Amino acid sequence: MAMTDEPRQPAVVLLSGGLDSATAAAIARAEGFDLHALSFDYGQRHRVELDAAKAIAEHLGVVEHRWAQIDLRTFGRSALTDQIAVPKDRDEADMTRGIPVTYVPARNTIFLSYALAYAEVLGASDIVIGVNAVDYSGYPDCRGEYIEAFERMANLATKAGVEGRRMTIHTPLIDLPKVDIIRRGLELGVDYALTHSCYDPDEAGRPCGRCDSCLLRTHAFEQLGMTDPALTAWSLK
Amino acid sequence: MAMTDEPRQPAVVLLSGGLDSATAAAIARAEGFDLHALSFDYGQRHRVELDAAKAIAEHLGVVEHRWAQIDLRTFGRSALTDQIAVPKDRDEADMTRGIPVTYVPARNTIFLSYALAYAEVLGASDIVIGVNAVDYSGYPDCRGEYIEAFERMANLATKAGVEGRRMTIHTPLIDLPKVDIIRRGLELGVDYALTHSCYDPDEAGRPCGRCDSCLLRTHAFEQLGMTDPALTAWSLK
Repeated sequence: MAMTDEPRQPAVVLLSGGLDSATAAAIARAEGFDLHALSFDYGQRHRVELDAAKAIAEHLGVVEHRWAQIDLRTFGRSALTDQIAVPKDRDEADMTRGIPVTYVPARNTIFLSYALAYAEVLGASDIVIGVNAVDYSGYPDCRGEYIEAFERMANLATKAGVEGRRMTIHTPLIDLPKVDIIRRGLELGVDYALTHSCYDPDEAGRPCGRCDSCLLRTHAFEQLGMTDPALTAWSLK
Repeated sequence: MAMTDEPRQPAVVLLSGGLDSATAAAIARAEGFDLHALSFDYGQRHRVELDAAKAIAEHLGVVEHRWAQIDLRTFGRSALTDQIAVPKDRDEADMTRGIPVTYVPARNTIFLSYALAYAEVLGASDIVIGVNAVDYSGYPDCRGEYIEAFERMANLATKAGVEGRRMTIHTPLIDLPKVDIIRRGLELGVDYALTHSCYDPDEAGRPCGRCDSCLLRTHAFEQLGMTDPALTAWSLK
């Protein structure tokens, strides 16, 4: 969508508080969408992730930020919601082997289903999700073929689809290595100090620096000759 | 699945408290599945629906009955969760014209997504939903092509799908007229006095007898030469 005098179209953007979703949202904004952010309180072990989502929504100037309370703990079995140890100090080959314990069953499907409900109520035809098939190749619901199947289902599920308005699921990061995601975000002015990606922060919310998610972002910032701004921000707290 | 000495397979069954889902569950049980019922508290205007789901789960001898609290009111815009008038006294031609105001955006998609998470945690390959494309032709997410698209997506979304275990969404009622649904349920011993389908019960929970859902079931029982057992049960209260 070009920057013209046309009215900006609304897009529902899934915002987690992490680096990827913040970048995906910034890209959608740059493409001319008005952002309607949707975040979930799903019993994350760490509230710091929710605070990060709030700060990023404000930073990006979203039109509206809605929260859905959902109870994934009903089904459990993930290091992100249960008391399962988060793997540490793995190299990138290990990270991309098999399905990680941090996988939450059907999480993206549930998130996208809520986004679909929100889009339908808004009359929006666009949903933005920061999934990435490079760094998270072990998560089945981060792959392009999954997203395409969701989009197809969404167009059969809804009034909008039945009435001929086509719903599009945008995945601007899906094929980008982390370093390219960050480079794009920096060009768009994303303040990565506000983002929080750690699977296992300490009591105060400080990133561990050793889980897969911390290591991936730290390495990517290093490749750009930078220190991760979130680590710098936390060291100043 | 035949009635043999083979161990019974688990199936996740979406149970609403209504006539259709009770029948779908009874059919799955008769096919040899162990039932793991999943119900939602999504801000229904009437708690009587939740009580009915509990009574039916007990009646059908489910192995487990889980409840998920979800907040569809976040997105609103449906007569089932908002203060929109429920249409009354419509004939069947009117009922099947267009998308009814009782449609909840993306509801079945959200429900099936939770069922998918539950199935994945259980290691179940089967999900049962009592959707019906005959009586609810106005709901896009009650059609066979929608269910097929969901199933395809589900098989790409999950660990199970990636590992080659195929997920099946069973819709035993999808092409059945209401009268045939009831006939099948009666053969299987379903106690329809326990079910509750009304969109607009009074304060006590008594069915209105005039909304689309009440009229469809009343007419169907009449065709079988019966009075709706739920109406009889309420008249005795």
